[in-house]
Amino acid sequence: MSITIRRFESTAADFDQTMNALLSWESVSDTGVQQAVTDIVNAVRSRGDEAVIEFTNRFDRMNVETMAQLELNQEQLQAALDGLPELQRDALLAAAARVRAYHEHQRQDSWRYTEADGTVLGQKVTPLDRVGLYVPGGKAAYPSSVLMNAIPAHVAGVQEIVMVVPTPGGELNQLVLAAAAAAGVSRVFTIGGAQAVAALAYGTATVPRVDKIVGPGNIYVATAKRMVFGAVGIDMIAGPSEILVVCDGATNPDWIAMDLFSQAEHDEDAQAILVSTEADFLDEVQASINRLLPTMERQDIIRASLEGRGALIHASSREDALAIINRIAPEHLELSVADPESWLPDVRHAGAIFMGRYTAEALGDYCAGPNHVLPTSGTARFSSPLGVYDFQKRSSLIMCSADGASELGKVASTLARGEFLTAHARSAEYRIKD
Amino acid sequence: MSITIRRFESTAADFDQTMNALLSWESVSDTGVQQAVTDIVNAVRSRGDEAVIEFTNRFDRMNVETMAQLELNQEQLQAALDGLPELQRDALLAAAARVRAYHEHQRQDSWRYTEADGTVLGQKVTPLDRVGLYVPGGKAAYPSSVLMNAIPAHVAGVQEIVMVVPTPGGELNQLVLAAAAAAGVSRVFTIGGAQAVAALAYGTATVPRVDKIVGPGNIYVATAKRMVFGAVGIDMIAGPSEILVVCDGATNPDWIAMDLFSQAEHDEDAQAILVSTEADFLDEVQASINRLLPTMERQDIIRASLEGRGALIHASSREDALAIINRIAPEHLELSVADPESWLPDVRHAGAIFMGRYTAEALGDYCAGPNHVLPTSGTARFSSPLGVYDFQKRSSLIMCSADGASELGKVASTLARGEFLTAHARSAEYRIKD
Repeated sequence: MSITIRRFESTAADFDQTMNALLSWESVSDTGVQQAVTDIVNAVRSRGDEAVIEFTNRFDRMNVETMAQLELNQEQLQAALDGLPELQRDALLAAAARVRAYHEHQRQDSWRYTEADGTVLGQKVTPLDRVGLYVPGGKAAYPSSVLMNAIPAHVAGVQEIVMVVPTPGGELNQLVLAAAAAAGVSRVFTIGGAQAVAALAYGTATVPRVDKIVGPGNIYVATAKRMVFGAVGIDMIAGPSEILVVCDGATNPDWIAMDLFSQAEHDEDAQAILVSTEADFLDEVQASINRLLPTMERQDIIRASLEGRGALIHASSREDALAIINRIAPEHLELSVADPESWLPDVRHAGAIFMGRYTAEALGDYCAGPNHVLPTSGTARFSSPLGVYDFQKRSSLIMCSADGASELGKVASTLARGEFLTAHARSAEYRIKD
Repeated sequence: MSITIRRFESTAADFDQTMNALLSWESVSDTGVQQAVTDIVNAVRSRGDEAVIEFTNRFDRMNVETMAQLELNQEQLQAALDGLPELQRDALLAAAARVRAYHEHQRQDSWRYTEADGTVLGQKVTPLDRVGLYVPGGKAAYPSSVLMNAIPAHVAGVQEIVMVVPTPGGELNQLVLAAAAAAGVSRVFTIGGAQAVAALAYGTATVPRVDKIVGPGNIYVATAKRMVFGAVGIDMIAGPSEILVVCDGATNPDWIAMDLFSQAEHDEDAQAILVSTEADFLDEVQASINRLLPTMERQDIIRASLEGRGALIHASSREDALAIINRIAPEHLELSVADPESWLPDVRHAGAIFMGRYTAEALGDYCAGPNHVLPTSGTARFSSPLGVYDFQKRSSLIMCSADGASELGKVASTLARGEFLTAHARSAEYRIKD
């Protein structure tokens, strides 16, 4: 049973419009969701724990009376890790160790320099005090996501990482708890939705107020994060996941088909695109897709994704392929080519670049080391993978010597008077030497 | 004529609540503004230049027919710079040079490392392609703001910096244009408001689409920036400006009074707070304020700001003073003390730290070097001064050797199967050696 994936030619007259249509994505802003989230956030802000308990009982089919029933302790996390089958525990710890080692390279240090007159300038870099990590419940609860969000915070030096994860019907995901233990999470509350986001943003008697909230969630969670932004920091609001595979035609087409599947299996809105200068190779991959699809557990999702948002693009040249890369600014870019290094200087926009035939995106999703939280929907044009730098912040340092202040005072005074800010000018002028 | 500034004791039983009330600030989200901005953004998105011209004529009392009439060229910018009085031009160029020198220290480089089995991991750092810089028109048009926003982008390597500045009634601010010349701005359109933000975010036939929009603006501009976030990056939405001065009592009280004025003169909502362990010194500063206020050009604004949001706080100890600093997480922190270095390790949250009696905030606002775009309203808990890093972004690099992919494949396969993502698992397994 074959599957119909659209084919495009990069030389077609309407290729630009085709790409715009293919890539267009806007999350629907539903006023119903907006209102529901506003009500929940306001209730938690004014009534604290009481509201959190109410919403948790209602939305997660729970029946608790106190916040203590909604908190797990470190022993429970450690027990989850200890209780895993050895193969899984080893894999989780190996992944955590690699992710940690990679992120150690991202830690930034304070710096300063001293000018000739003794004036000191620089930046002091400090970790955030306390971070909230949202982990979705149910089927979308990914232990790898716990590692990828918590480890950079831990490496940054964040003292307290507060995780929230809803447990609909009371069901705990042991792998998620094990990942929390492996990643150094400080506290875990089994709450979710907009109520969990509001509790983290404003604090309750039980849930401590955090400085930043990270982690994926459904439309209620995303809407709540947008709403509390400003009171706390947030990470990017992610769109559907996407991959762009660029292949020179010499990789096993089954490998490429499976790489596309690995993106498409996330959900129907996920986007998998293959670009090649070799038209025959596109045919081969299409044949592999047709043959392999019926063997996949999530074939319905994969089919919907590939038919709805997938594409096989024949590029007329390497330059065309590069233009497509930079037009898409893909979350994941797989350069399945003979000499990926030679492509690299011309790749301006991508969340993560998987270089060479061996580097399947799936390796990066779990354990290569780099973060799997990446900018989606073309936002790689202006944003970066989640990293240690997202859990550090900077304070400018300025310490003027008497001589330095005198010289700077003259410049500042002139400019301040040009802006009609005379208190600024006079404050600077006090520091000018007679 | 004396002025009434509130006095607080850090040991008071209700000090926490007092601080919460003093610091509370929320920007009002007005549904009228929201609707007006939505309409403008949609019109510009669908009708492009035509809508931009319409809104500009309507809101800025202009009468133009083509976009060409709304663009300035490089010669006009250079002429503005050349035409300044020598003192002003020298001050502007001196400030630009210092800001540039400081920001050169912030540029980040790509990095990579190779593991024993040949696997390469790293991050590629690239500048954004094109950035939009919003500059308010009329009285709030600050040339220093042009330098502070454009120079970090320029240092980052951004190829095209597109500035927009409304010119109500056709009036051009020569200092602003001169600053654009000094800062390396590429193109200038004399448009403003939500229509300018929309044009930058989505592009029109004339205005190129940018990747990020920075710069201050009124409530329409701020609302529009929030709305287009996602399509483009944006900087922080700033609240009112604030300063916290901590003084050991040995600085000239006139200097401290003027430093407080320099913040208060921005607008009625600006916040200036003085903390000292010396109650007598608070009295001396109050006396200086009473004496100096009548000599200030903007005394009405200063009075409203100090009476409405200012405070003189008597701290019982240095530890108390430090707790107040970290509670406020001030945009500007002036440590007007004998040994500011000894305070630094305990200061966890501040946008910029002005150390020592000579380092007036005004020096940093204009020409010390560090950026004057700083996190307000306590957001220094999780965010940083505007910097070169805001105009660079990162792409993760992963290049697995055959051996590396084989080992990683085993770990990824185990974890993927734990998450029921079997396409991920099989994609990884293809790379495992037999």
